[in-house]
Amino acid sequence: MPILVIANKLYSSWSLRPWLLLKQFGIPFEEIVIPLDQPDTKARVLEYSPAGKVPILIDGSVTVWESIAIVDYVGEVFGAPVWPADRKARGMARSIAAEMHAGFQALRSACPMNLGKKYAARDRGEAVARDVARFSEIVRQARKEFGQDGLFLFGSFSAADAMYAPLVTRLDTYSIALDATTQAYVNAILALPAFQEWRSAALEETWIVDADEVDEEPTAIYRKAA
Amino acid sequence: MPILVIANKLYSSWSLRPWLLLKQFGIPFEEIVIPLDQPDTKARVLEYSPAGKVPILIDGSVTVWESIAIVDYVGEVFGAPVWPADRKARGMARSIAAEMHAGFQALRSACPMNLGKKYAARDRGEAVARDVARFSEIVRQARKEFGQDGLFLFGSFSAADAMYAPLVTRLDTYSIALDATTQAYVNAILALPAFQEWRSAALEETWIVDADEVDEEPTAIYRKAA
Ligand SMILES: N[C@@H](CCC(=O)N[C@@H](CS)C(=O)NCC(=O)O)C(=O)O
Ligand SMILES: N[C@@H](CCC(=O)N[C@@H](CS)C(=O)NCC(=O)O)C(=O)O
Repeated sequence: MPILVIANKLYSSWSLRPWLLLKQFGIPFEEIVIPLDQPDTKARVLEYSPAGKVPILIDGSVTVWESIAIVDYVGEVFGAPVWPADRKARGMARSIAAEMHAGFQALRSACPMNLGKKYAARDRGEAVARDVARFSEIVRQARKEFGQDGLFLFGSFSAADAMYAPLVTRLDTYSIALDATTQAYVNAILALPAFQEWRSAALEETWIVDADEVDEEPTAIYRKAA
Repeated sequence: MPILVIANKLYSSWSLRPWLLLKQFGIPFEEIVIPLDQPDTKARVLEYSPAGKVPILIDGSVTVWESIAIVDYVGEVFGAPVWPADRKARGMARSIAAEMHAGFQALRSACPMNLGKKYAARDRGEAVARDVARFSEIVRQARKEFGQDGLFLFGSFSAADAMYAPLVTRLDTYSIALDATTQAYVNAILALPAFQEWRSAALEETWIVDADEVDEEPTAIYRKAA
């Protein structure tokens, strides 16, 4: 059985991507959680991958790191239809997944993934607003052109949805205002049973990562302990 | 024939990746160059892709953007063996390509791609040194485990080489000291006829992009005009 090495479910946005993909496509795997920001974090991660970051997929003698590379490996080797079959949809799905992989920096740094809290809406600056606008544009285009047969970007769940799932949680956590199409998509991701499972496990965690806790009063705290 | 929309060959690191890949795999394409940093750059790019960045591949009704997405599209749709066939090599090739797609920020920002000049070696800080060390580690691991049958990371030329080519030019432009294995790899990329073709065209360009010109006296200037 493949092993997926991840970090804290509460905070680790990159870890959520391949985890959700494997769950959604029904591929059994073992999971190893290495909490971030502990004295031995780096050493433990380096035992699995020379790049020193999670997520990492270990499949027998093969090691794959970087979320987008894991996604493609899963598609090729485990035979899961991770990308839409239609050539045009597939081209867009790959493009937006890659855009996520290297982009949305403003939103990512201003609004770290944090499933344990909720914050009030507030102005988070122009660069964040631009990232949100680009995300909404992606959702509207994909849903309109390719999303007819389901709730997800390309209809049924694909790797593109997995890649954007952490961003979706940020929009929710930081109460970012969205148009109706984007909000409906956000709701569809948050309602996924696999995501609910991840979230429940996250809320049981007790680690705190200061770098991912913004300096704002939350409007709700969901964690069991802290 | 597919169309590849790119920016200035002298400066546009992302553009070089799919261009080199298409050339190396002998796939004919038309090319459209949109110079960066001109009053109409953004508007011209947006005519082709809603993400507003180059490179962009247009293949009939399909538009693909983001270098890594173009690479995979080329592999799938044009049937080019862009990734190594061996599963383990392929896993590593995809991982390091993705690592490049989202990483090496220190080196990328301190040493912008600039094929028109050469700079003397100097200390460029710890973060840059870490990026260079990680690149050398990648080259040594790939060449040792998978590179026996050729000069490239996985023996013969693959998408991983295309993804790292711009980084290779930076190591050369900024005279960064390398171990023998890494230097030999850098030389192999710089000697590629397709790269030479790109470089010659770059040196004919007259546009200057201030943001990509570092504030240092060059030790050589290669451009025809400036
Ligand atoms: N581009 C990478 C990003 C991975 C990443 O940044 N992971 C973080 C956790 S979310 C990490 O491992 N941090 C530990 C460290 O950098 O020491 C991917 O797609 O997997
Ligand atoms: N992650 C993207 C990066 C593309 C990118 O940043 N392109 C630059 C040129 S090298 C660009 O289009 N800049 C114009 C702009 O941002 O307005 C890729 O892999 O293609």
